[in-house]
Amino acid sequence: MAHPGLEAWRDYLHSHDKDRLWALLHPEAVFESPVVHTPQRGRDIVFKYLSSAGVVLGGDSFKYTGEWFSDDGAVLEFESEIDGIKINGVDIIRFDEDARIVHFKVMVRPLKAINLLHQMMGAQLSKT
Amino acid sequence: MAHPGLEAWRDYLHSHDKDRLWALLHPEAVFESPVVHTPQRGRDIVFKYLSSAGVVLGGDSFKYTGEWFSDDGAVLEFESEIDGIKINGVDIIRFDEDARIVHFKVMVRPLKAINLLHQMMGAQLSKT
Repeated sequence: MAHPGLEAWRDYLHSHDKDRLWALLHPEAVFESPVVHTPQRGRDIVFKYLSSAGVVLGGDSFKYTGEWFSDDGAVLEFESEIDGIKINGVDIIRFDEDARIVHFKVMVRPLKAINLLHQMMGAQLSKT
Repeated sequence: MAHPGLEAWRDYLHSHDKDRLWALLHPEAVFESPVVHTPQRGRDIVFKYLSSAGVVLGGDSFKYTGEWFSDDGAVLEFESEIDGIKINGVDIIRFDEDARIVHFKVMVRPLKAINLLHQMMGAQLSKT
């Protein structure tokens, strides 16, 4: 069964409204990137990563293609394409009892797509 | 709810019995690797990838750490460590109505772990 937090996440994605993203994040939220092992801790840095990922990945070709559920969250599979490179990944999202995001992890395949995202996310993060 | 095929998959992992793995695979099973975009099609090549991945990843440090379900399958998150490098990934498994694996996709993070697996899987596949 889909978690109520997922609907809020989808609302944010459709609206591109960053206030909604901020309201969705627990103050002690954690983000784990496809590239780096060390978790990023706290709403400020998680907000920065997720909004940058939205800019980099959120083009017209981005779509969710699969979903799997647990009691406290979901795995959402996505596909996108940037500069002719196909990107396939998962958002692994965990919510608290108030439907706020407490943990957000991203994995991406294939290797070519990770290298592209690594480079584009670095450039985007340095702008914010 | 966990899919019945998952129990058979866990039985195989615990037993390391390759006959069980073979019996679990649909003749037209598809494998998608963390490294390469192009899907690998057919039981022979899927068996080769999954049994090689078992050798490379299936050390004492391998453990499943999370699970999410859909009607026809599951996402299983794993952690492992090889040569001091922490590996975090997901197995995305889809079953047919006879609980045979029809699709198996793997994603891995972080980048350092993908590069290590790329190299180790290449070496292992060339032995089989």
